Amino acid sequence: MKHELDQLMKERGLAAIVVQGSVAGNPPMYYMTNGAGLTQAYVVQKRGEEPVLICLAIEREQAAASGLRIVNVNRYGYAELLREKSERLDAMVELHRRIFDDLAITGHVGFYGKIDQGRAWVLLNALDEHLDEIGVHGDFGVTVIDAARATKDEAEAKRVRQVGQSTCDIIGQTIEFLRSHAVKNDRLVKADGSPLTIGDTHQQIQRLIAEKGLEDPEGFIFSIGHDAAVPHNKGTADDVIELGKTIIFDIFPCEPGGGYFADVTRTFCLGYATEAVECAYQDVYDCQAQMLAAYETGEPTRRYQQMTCDFFESRGHPTVATDAKTEAGYVHSLGHGLGLAIHEEPRFSDVPSNTNVVRPGHLFTCEPGLYYPDRAFGIRIEDDVWISPEGDIHVLTDFPKELVIEL
Amino acid sequence: MKHELDQLMKERGLAAIVVQGSVAGNPPMYYMTNGAGLTQAYVVQKRGEEPVLICLAIEREQAAASGLRIVNVNRYGYAELLREKSERLDAMVELHRRIFDDLAITGHVGFYGKIDQGRAWVLLNALDEHLDEIGVHGDFGVTVIDAARATKDEAEAKRVRQVGQSTCDIIGQTIEFLRSHAVKNDRLVKADGSPLTIGDTHQQIQRLIAEKGLEDPEGFIFSIGHDAAVPHNKGTADDVIELGKTIIFDIFPCEPGGGYFADVTRTFCLGYATEAVECAYQDVYDCQAQMLAAYETGEPTRRYQQMTCDFFESRGHPTVATDAKTEAGYVHSLGHGLGLAIHEEPRFSDVPSNTNVVRPGHLFTCEPGLYYPDRAFGIRIEDDVWISPEGDIHVLTDFPKELVIEL
Repeated sequence: MKHELDQLMKERGLAAIVVQGSVAGNPPMYYMTNGAGLTQAYVVQKRGEEPVLICLAIEREQAAASGLRIVNVNRYGYAELLREKSERLDAMVELHRRIFDDLAITGHVGFYGKIDQGRAWVLLNALDEHLDEIGVHGDFGVTVIDAARATKDEAEAKRVRQVGQSTCDIIGQTIEFLRSHAVKNDRLVKADGSPLTIGDTHQQIQRLIAEKGLEDPEGFIFSIGHDAAVPHNKGTADDVIELGKTIIFDIFPCEPGGGYFADVTRTFCLGYATEAVECAYQDVYDCQAQMLAAYETGEPTRRYQQMTCDFFESRGHPTVATDAKTEAGYVHSLGHGLGLAIHEEPRFSDVPSNTNVVRPGHLFTCEPGLYYPDRAFGIRIEDDVWISPEGDIHVLTDFPKELVIEL
Repeated sequence: MKHELDQLMKERGLAAIVVQGSVAGNPPMYYMTNGAGLTQAYVVQKRGEEPVLICLAIEREQAAASGLRIVNVNRYGYAELLREKSERLDAMVELHRRIFDDLAITGHVGFYGKIDQGRAWVLLNALDEHLDEIGVHGDFGVTVIDAARATKDEAEAKRVRQVGQSTCDIIGQTIEFLRSHAVKNDRLVKADGSPLTIGDTHQQIQRLIAEKGLEDPEGFIFSIGHDAAVPHNKGTADDVIELGKTIIFDIFPCEPGGGYFADVTRTFCLGYATEAVECAYQDVYDCQAQMLAAYETGEPTRRYQQMTCDFFESRGHPTVATDAKTEAGYVHSLGHGLGLAIHEEPRFSDVPSNTNVVRPGHLFTCEPGLYYPDRAFGIRIEDDVWISPEGDIHVLTDFPKELVIEL
């Protein structure tokens, strides 16, 4: 949570942090500016003080929506600097010098926010070289901002829950859309007798997302049969919708303007399911139920990935635990943190660099799955979990988990 | 254009370029992966060769939509590396070593794509230190990717034109929405007699954008009176819609999934306009007409900003040419490149670091404006321009420029 930033700075020996760049597509900046709807901004937070938002002159009023202390960048003679210096880099170094002088910042400064990587490298090396009073700091692993964002307060969890509710409504409406079609030769058909396609369904889902006032910057997955057996295959537009095949519907929209995401997956078969799919579905269902009951604060997140692998192995499925490259069986990790980005901290992967433990405030997906490309089916069930300040497990998304949709 | 990448690499002494990071919110990655809808990717282009897309195993099929040569990251033992190394950075350095070895890349490599800036700094310094065969290169100003993206081919211009058409439709429908309301005490009112607000209109515009199947990641501006006098003020939800005040409607949606943007602004007054507004409007209108007729390939883009300032000064308005910090009169630059990002190359600002000249393929906005916060009005007229391969000027957006909307 944001109030942890001071403590995080202290732990990493930082005198201040800087978050920089555009706001769109840059969750750290949305986070620091409280979604104020700016084009670009520069936020500085000195340890022990409130953050300062340095904004462009033309955004001086929009910046007020952040609730932060606002400084117009022209206070630092930015426009004049750009006119004086033939190299933009020289102007930026001087601008940073003036900002740090003005805010009396010396010591190590952590730099965050998404910008072009080569540009960042040039800028931060130049700052490190030319500004004697500060030392540049970057975090390769979990950044200070990542760490703060990893835990959510009640208000943030509520926003995810609301998006999750709309997301579940969309799943229900999509199933009703499918059920409103007739069946011919084991396929759904439209009024004119032509087959309903995955592409038609994609369009309907896009309409439903828009009607809910949500955005879909990452693009949902609605895939059938073989495609469902490859986790991030979004579905092939020309595919017809056949009865008895697994359909994976994984949908992860966000609030408009770059806000909080929800992330829900359901798998279903229309009309009937084969026995092999029924068995695998039960395994995924049981696995998710077991995991949802198992989360405990203080436990390493890796442990849940290990438990999931153990569970699936015990039911006879290959997993990434025994073959890191397997493309059959359980092939990904159990979940990921969720918030202003669709994938954020905490991670659940079972690798030594993952030192996360489950903490109050963590908000993450629980999404075991089984994939068999050779047998042309895949199954995944996904819900979103929040750990309350008291350490209680709250499942934020609620939609039935029926494998077979009766037609 | 993309085919210029080889030449650009040569000019900068680069043996190869790397584009990295998520796809959402990262236009360089959308550009290099042709909008394939991946979560994250790693694209390497060796000079003189076709680009290679290195993808996660779970995205191996989605990656095919890029049309690029695909390599599954597991070819480089990525999953095992993450298990062997206790530090993620060490795994990433080794991964880069294997990729560059495999593709026989030595020499200077340019790094692009938006990632966390501190993380980029740590990673690129580590690569520069540990990989003896390569030297890290970053561009602070116009990157190689920026330079390629700055010029658009016919297909790209067509996409902007199509989004522009929908955008103009939305402006028309919004005006019809306003006109469908009754007037009481010089304000628009709803059926129940309560005043129509800016917030009501914002919601209607959001619906219209969704109906067109467009996305609005940056958030449009629909502001009235004082707010219209501060360029990036998006409008205050509670404001009522009064006759005779200037309304700025600046709308810049993009194709779904992070594609091309259009960017159009119209300014209007409902019912009537004051004489001061009429005069200033005419100045902006005349200025835009003059600039649209003046663009010529080979001319420095700065020159158009100078011409705009000269024009407005000649009509008695203050400009940034004489006072870089002015908040009254003409306070911004004439336009900006437009494409996969709302602000990209070429820039038009009149600063020495701007060495752009107008080139065939450039696609940019032409948006002169006048702002008078003390007099509570602002005016901006904006259209999108593309320079064809033959050097012809095409205005891609077409909507009437009437100041007064009759009620």
